[in-house]
Amino acid sequence: MYNQSISPSVIKRLPRYYRFLEDLEAAGMTRISSAALSEKMGITASQIRQDLNCFGGFGQQGYGYNISSLKVEIGKILNIDKTKKLIVIGVGNLGKAIASHINFEDKGYELIGLFDKKEAFIGQTVRGLPVRSIETIDDFCREHHPSTAVLCIPKDNAKEIAYKLVKLGIKGFLNFSHYDLSLTYDNIVVENVHFGDQLMILSYNINNLEN
Amino acid sequence: MYNQSISPSVIKRLPRYYRFLEDLEAAGMTRISSAALSEKMGITASQIRQDLNCFGGFGQQGYGYNISSLKVEIGKILNIDKTKKLIVIGVGNLGKAIASHINFEDKGYELIGLFDKKEAFIGQTVRGLPVRSIETIDDFCREHHPSTAVLCIPKDNAKEIAYKLVKLGIKGFLNFSHYDLSLTYDNIVVENVHFGDQLMILSYNINNLEN
Repeated sequence: MYNQSISPSVIKRLPRYYRFLEDLEAAGMTRISSAALSEKMGITASQIRQDLNCFGGFGQQGYGYNISSLKVEIGKILNIDKTKKLIVIGVGNLGKAIASHINFEDKGYELIGLFDKKEAFIGQTVRGLPVRSIETIDDFCREHHPSTAVLCIPKDNAKEIAYKLVKLGIKGFLNFSHYDLSLTYDNIVVENVHFGDQLMILSYNINNLEN
Repeated sequence: MYNQSISPSVIKRLPRYYRFLEDLEAAGMTRISSAALSEKMGITASQIRQDLNCFGGFGQQGYGYNISSLKVEIGKILNIDKTKKLIVIGVGNLGKAIASHINFEDKGYELIGLFDKKEAFIGQTVRGLPVRSIETIDDFCREHHPSTAVLCIPKDNAKEIAYKLVKLGIKGFLNFSHYDLSLTYDNIVVENVHFGDQLMILSYNINNLEN
């Protein structure tokens, strides 16, 4: 219902609002003004009002925002209130880190399967789940219908497995593989993670620091 | 020399150009037109011409871009041609994955030290380097002058260690900790990595896929 009016740049900022609201709620606060939220988040109060007005405006002049309601509403917009089944492909150091440390439930996901092709990993337990052989992925997906996959595999292996996963109904990818999925497939959505790109941006910014 | 004229949004796109040019060069190509590059990268040719014109324009009408020269020039803008010393703080699964898999040299960094507070990790070898006790970080930084740190530690530990690292002269952070460094310190630059935020964006986008 919100879809038509919200620009991608506002959507990109919503998770950060969500995190800050979670922290404020955990700290026992119930209301916050756009001015106070502005100071905490390091963005202008007018930006905040503008962003949050995009989907109806949860603030009341003079009373600020109700933290819990605002968090719930942002969660609904982000579709966090509906659980999506997620699998992790590749359980090397990176896959293990992802599987172990991310609070999937808080983001609307349920981790239901871990897969690798390496014999030594198969059968290991990560976050209470057994690592399965990648050979069994077809049957698993047909039975459990995951919608989302985290690709923690090298670029060279990603092409083949991505082709398979798209055919098996995976719609969303968190992609660490450097293989450019979104250039190959149309009806999927991808979030790419490129640490190398961020290191290059950092390199530029370090060079442009004053003093 | 380029600094004044390039907008942050162009800078953000440069690493992706750099990666594609690396791939083209590795494939033995020497020149490419903006039209062909456009098709490969999935962005418009006019966007490419506009971006690359920001810093002088490397293309010749009718001849396209010289791949190697363009790569070198983008590398200079990103300051990749100058080596920056880098340390990794925290060598759990995530820190190990980062230290092992990123090609730091290609991005203008030299990995010179790994640190953890966990006894079991200290003395382990990761990518040919010994994991050192975090207790020794002061001496190490005073001797070796790293400029950049990758923080692979939990939010709760990050505050204290960040304070120390800024005092020890670290200017750039690749930050996995969820502790909002840039809100606390002025004269540093930070690239934050938030897998959780990306999962939330993905959640929104999955929900808004057509069909």
